[in-house]
Amino acid sequence: MLSLPRTLEWRDGKLAFIDQTKLPEQLVYVETEDWERVAKAIKSMEIRGAPAIGVAAAYALALFAYHSTVDSLERFLEELDRVAGALKRTRPTAVNLFWAVDRVVAAAKSATSVDDARRRVIEEAKRIHFEDEQANRRIGEIGEHLIGDGDTVITVCNAGSLATSYWGTATAPMYVARERGKKFRVIALETRPFLQGARLTAWELSQAGIEVVVATDNSIGILAEKERIDLALVGADRITRLGYVANKLGTYPLALVARVHNIPFYVAAPTSTIDMRSAGPGDFEIEKRDPSEVLYIKGYRIAPEGVTAIYYAFDITPPQLVTGIITEKGIIYPPYEKNIPRTLGLSNF
Amino acid sequence: MLSLPRTLEWRDGKLAFIDQTKLPEQLVYVETEDWERVAKAIKSMEIRGAPAIGVAAAYALALFAYHSTVDSLERFLEELDRVAGALKRTRPTAVNLFWAVDRVVAAAKSATSVDDARRRVIEEAKRIHFEDEQANRRIGEIGEHLIGDGDTVITVCNAGSLATSYWGTATAPMYVARERGKKFRVIALETRPFLQGARLTAWELSQAGIEVVVATDNSIGILAEKERIDLALVGADRITRLGYVANKLGTYPLALVARVHNIPFYVAAPTSTIDMRSAGPGDFEIEKRDPSEVLYIKGYRIAPEGVTAIYYAFDITPPQLVTGIITEKGIIYPPYEKNIPRTLGLSNF
Repeated sequence: MLSLPRTLEWRDGKLAFIDQTKLPEQLVYVETEDWERVAKAIKSMEIRGAPAIGVAAAYALALFAYHSTVDSLERFLEELDRVAGALKRTRPTAVNLFWAVDRVVAAAKSATSVDDARRRVIEEAKRIHFEDEQANRRIGEIGEHLIGDGDTVITVCNAGSLATSYWGTATAPMYVARERGKKFRVIALETRPFLQGARLTAWELSQAGIEVVVATDNSIGILAEKERIDLALVGADRITRLGYVANKLGTYPLALVARVHNIPFYVAAPTSTIDMRSAGPGDFEIEKRDPSEVLYIKGYRIAPEGVTAIYYAFDITPPQLVTGIITEKGIIYPPYEKNIPRTLGLSNF
Repeated sequence: MLSLPRTLEWRDGKLAFIDQTKLPEQLVYVETEDWERVAKAIKSMEIRGAPAIGVAAAYALALFAYHSTVDSLERFLEELDRVAGALKRTRPTAVNLFWAVDRVVAAAKSATSVDDARRRVIEEAKRIHFEDEQANRRIGEIGEHLIGDGDTVITVCNAGSLATSYWGTATAPMYVARERGKKFRVIALETRPFLQGARLTAWELSQAGIEVVVATDNSIGILAEKERIDLALVGADRITRLGYVANKLGTYPLALVARVHNIPFYVAAPTSTIDMRSAGPGDFEIEKRDPSEVLYIKGYRIAPEGVTAIYYAFDITPPQLVTGIITEKGIIYPPYEKNIPRTLGLSNF
């Protein structure tokens, strides 16, 4: 068995989460009964990764439900809506957040009493957590054949176990390949400014006994030229119905380099990451974050005083650059506008 | 008059240089009589930037000549060769280093006495310095029209005054445009791991009153999508006779993004950066540097213990992605294999 971090854990009325800002120096679990603490953790990126954000938001609603003392169903549903709204305002790009919150709220809507509603909210949050883990395991099994013995795989950010319920998305095929005895090397792009690649992906892969080496984000061109790279494998924060992929900064340049150097470029994501309401890049928000997250590294200011930074947190890879999308329902290949609805079993698209 | 840093200064038997590792916190000049101190400064990147490395190496030979007490011409030339060899081993990619050292050594070869050789070495170093400044000023005047009032220009690393004798290469058109009253904005990619963009380019442009904003290297894709970018303008460490451009990490991905988003991509470099002996990427060495330069930021380790990094210092942009090369002899456009020799006045290529 591989030793993977479990980033979120429901402990009967409490949520325990790994504070991802403290890794790799310290593995710290925070335990809270307070849904607002979870909202704060999502905003500050103590909890990050699209699927993990979704599960955490679902559990935030469960914390609210568990500790709520309201005794009318109507009041409960009103307050639940208010909490849902606050959770949705934490981060705008990852669609899993909206999907999970809506799903939990919908589950409560059919309740017959306030106690039934509480139970439904908590059960739905647990179900989302469980399903995410199952989906990732399937992604791993489905995508594992893309990794050959002796291969070099390149990835961006952390689409790992830390970013999900377990197994990760982009890392799931790596973990399954590792279980099946394959030896391969992973290049983890460091992923400025938050350094998820250097801090988190390097940590969890090396914990699992997978060879991992870090490289700066700007080195993708020379790596494609000088190192043999067999596969680019990344996660996603949102996939539109036409196959545009919003993911952490650096994904789109990597996809361009991969195309020019004939490296297969796969996106791994559960179908909960697919946003059928969005077609293209203009249909959703790309989060802009505080420039100070770029300008300071552990308190050290990298640019002169008076100079600011532009900091978008995600970029958008167009469908033409995506070789395939690995989901728990199979690998979706182009044309995405046809094969995404087909995979989701939607006939009306 | 703009206020630009003068990164190297010959002070009659001494060389003063800015320690670029200390910027932007401190502007520190180091003064030395010792050529080996200069070699060390090049290796450790206290002095960096292809043209500045060339000029510094020339002055290192001048320091040797100035302080040498050898009284036979033959011995002097032997020792000069030894010093030249040591200087050439400091950094492998920037061709200006080899070009400048060879030029100074050649100047000494025709001397009639040891004193004449000393004088020739020192004069040749000063001439290289002066010519580099003149060439950069010309690059600025020739390239200035590419920057329009209200434009946004993106650049990588520091191809600025700090990287050269004065004016810089990629920055020269910016400084001339600024002198002529144009207002524009520059996006300085931070340029990991050494952060030349955030530390050096942001510093010298803001000193000169040019609006500058920093962005992470992996943000090039979303910047091209969300910000109006009118021009990409970068320096070069080596340009082959077919127009391949070796430059700081991140240049090649930027050129790819620029091509896809229809942004003109210009390289600014004096003709001393053109290496007629190299055709393609395989004909010269891409420097690999110590992984610890990636793994530590101001003493803070970004990746877990036991994980290493791959660190190439440069990448190679193919000629198809280069709109034009701005030199002191005019802008060279494709086909480069024809127009580079023509611009250099070489008929035998």
